Amino acid sequence: MRVHIQNPENETLFPVTPAQWAAAVKRNPDMAGLRPSFAADEAGFQAAIGEAELLVTWVRIVHQRLAHEGLKPLAPKLRTIFCTSAGLDRLAPFDWLPEDVALLNNRGAHSVKAGEFGLMALLMLANHLPAFAQAQQRGEWAPRFGSVLAGRRLIVVGLGSLGGAVATRAAQFGMRVTGVRNTDRPHEACERVVTQDALDSVLPDAEFLVLACPLTPATRGLLDRRRVGLLPQGAKLVNIARGPVWDQDAVADALEAGRLGGALTDVAVPEPLPPGHRLWSVPGLFITPHMSVDDPETYNDDSLDILFANLRAAREGKPMANRIDPQAGY
Amino acid sequence: MRVHIQNPENETLFPVTPAQWAAAVKRNPDMAGLRPSFAADEAGFQAAIGEAELLVTWVRIVHQRLAHEGLKPLAPKLRTIFCTSAGLDRLAPFDWLPEDVALLNNRGAHSVKAGEFGLMALLMLANHLPAFAQAQQRGEWAPRFGSVLAGRRLIVVGLGSLGGAVATRAAQFGMRVTGVRNTDRPHEACERVVTQDALDSVLPDAEFLVLACPLTPATRGLLDRRRVGLLPQGAKLVNIARGPVWDQDAVADALEAGRLGGALTDVAVPEPLPPGHRLWSVPGLFITPHMSVDDPETYNDDSLDILFANLRAAREGKPMANRIDPQAGY
Repeated sequence: MRVHIQNPENETLFPVTPAQWAAAVKRNPDMAGLRPSFAADEAGFQAAIGEAELLVTWVRIVHQRLAHEGLKPLAPKLRTIFCTSAGLDRLAPFDWLPEDVALLNNRGAHSVKAGEFGLMALLMLANHLPAFAQAQQRGEWAPRFGSVLAGRRLIVVGLGSLGGAVATRAAQFGMRVTGVRNTDRPHEACERVVTQDALDSVLPDAEFLVLACPLTPATRGLLDRRRVGLLPQGAKLVNIARGPVWDQDAVADALEAGRLGGALTDVAVPEPLPPGHRLWSVPGLFITPHMSVDDPETYNDDSLDILFANLRAAREGKPMANRIDPQAGY
Repeated sequence: MRVHIQNPENETLFPVTPAQWAAAVKRNPDMAGLRPSFAADEAGFQAAIGEAELLVTWVRIVHQRLAHEGLKPLAPKLRTIFCTSAGLDRLAPFDWLPEDVALLNNRGAHSVKAGEFGLMALLMLANHLPAFAQAQQRGEWAPRFGSVLAGRRLIVVGLGSLGGAVATRAAQFGMRVTGVRNTDRPHEACERVVTQDALDSVLPDAEFLVLACPLTPATRGLLDRRRVGLLPQGAKLVNIARGPVWDQDAVADALEAGRLGGALTDVAVPEPLPPGHRLWSVPGLFITPHMSVDDPETYNDDSLDILFANLRAAREGKPMANRIDPQAGY
């Protein structure tokens, strides 16, 4: 099978390298027959795409080169696209995607990192770290004591690779986790799982709330102003999903009013958040610049293992676990 | 046995209450024979101390009322003092303590909280959170990716209740932990344990270093300027011990020079750190105001259980696990 790996130009942290590919094939010897090419420029892309059966690349490149032009004339032999991102919301709606082309996301590559980041965020909120960061800037030594996580009630919205990992870590620390997803199928880390329709009924019980769902038409604006109002006094929020999943201004207003006990967000609207934007100075809000779930040292190795597991499944006539459902949007 | 509980005046978070005492006796029914009195003022102290056989109180109160006056004339029947703090360094040297009076610390009450705080600090440093806190103040969106903890080398100085809990949490996340304490007795969370004499030999290997030892003459100035210089480029430091255990200015200099990869300290010299002090604005340093190991919601319950376990041991003719060794200083 002809595989083309198209890296972004000038990318230094995350390009998939021939050495990483070779190491991945060594770990997965049944993939030795794949014939890879690598490029990071336009000429390399044009030279390879006509023959490529599998394209490994970034969402941004799919968006620019395939989703806005006819895919078939450019890439007649292409049957699989593997995007090295978990969230493909930027490519929706998927009406550009031919039915005979499988689009794979990278769900799973982020789970260890996401579990650690989510747990860190919960511990930071339990210990008032956003407030201490701001007190430090004022030169103010003002002790407040925090609580251990055990026994605290946590709602995790989204139980995929990211949210599932956070729920699992939280449960290891004794938190009582309620999961919210599109089915009420049980999850081993959750005391109970409810569907998104039941979100209103569980929000009043959320001491902690983690947003970790994909951005889809169904989750855009999910935590709107009305639902922020359903949260209990002192609730603590984490967003590792996408900025538009919550009403950013409603959350900021609630923090300023002292209604919430703190928040940590790894996402914002817009990104990058410009200097002077209101969000930077909301009391009790800690902002990280969309870095929560990626570890350059392990990312591509994990990604290629995920790709190869999908290719192996396809060879065996099984469904590819990371294939996007164009209707569901993830 | 006559027990007197002397709380500080105007203390709202941590006073030991009659209700907490009653609940602890319910959990430990063999302690039903103890006869407690409670006070938070001078008159209450004076009325009770002459008959008290066991005093439950704070380090500060022992320091003010017993350690600087003759203990025996004031409290002739006193045989046990239980301080609701882990670190009793403020009471050293212990020449004021009669040989027939056992001084107990509260080692153990802080371990769950300390383990969570220490893990949080490690995750924050692995994810560059001190730098992001400062970037947020400047309104600067500048992504840097972090690493997972697995495989990283951590040195924990002090393997008591605090350091042992941090080492255990770190090992659960796959860190490779070297412990440093006053014996080389193995610890289940550590790949190896060395004595303080060998500290110089392990520092060059420390990607992460956690200080969690008691402050004693042997640990004062332990991480001095020379030893800061032995740490590898980019090392990340956590201090949940006491401010004088490290050379605060040497650490600040190394952070300003870009020699270290970040630090989080819960202690400072002096405390409270005054407004305008240099430490507040050191790049890559996150300061929390000495709140790392206490959880008001669980602290007194845990403390009383620890006290009762010691009293039970004494009744059975066994050593009291929390008794201070005046020579060792902890």
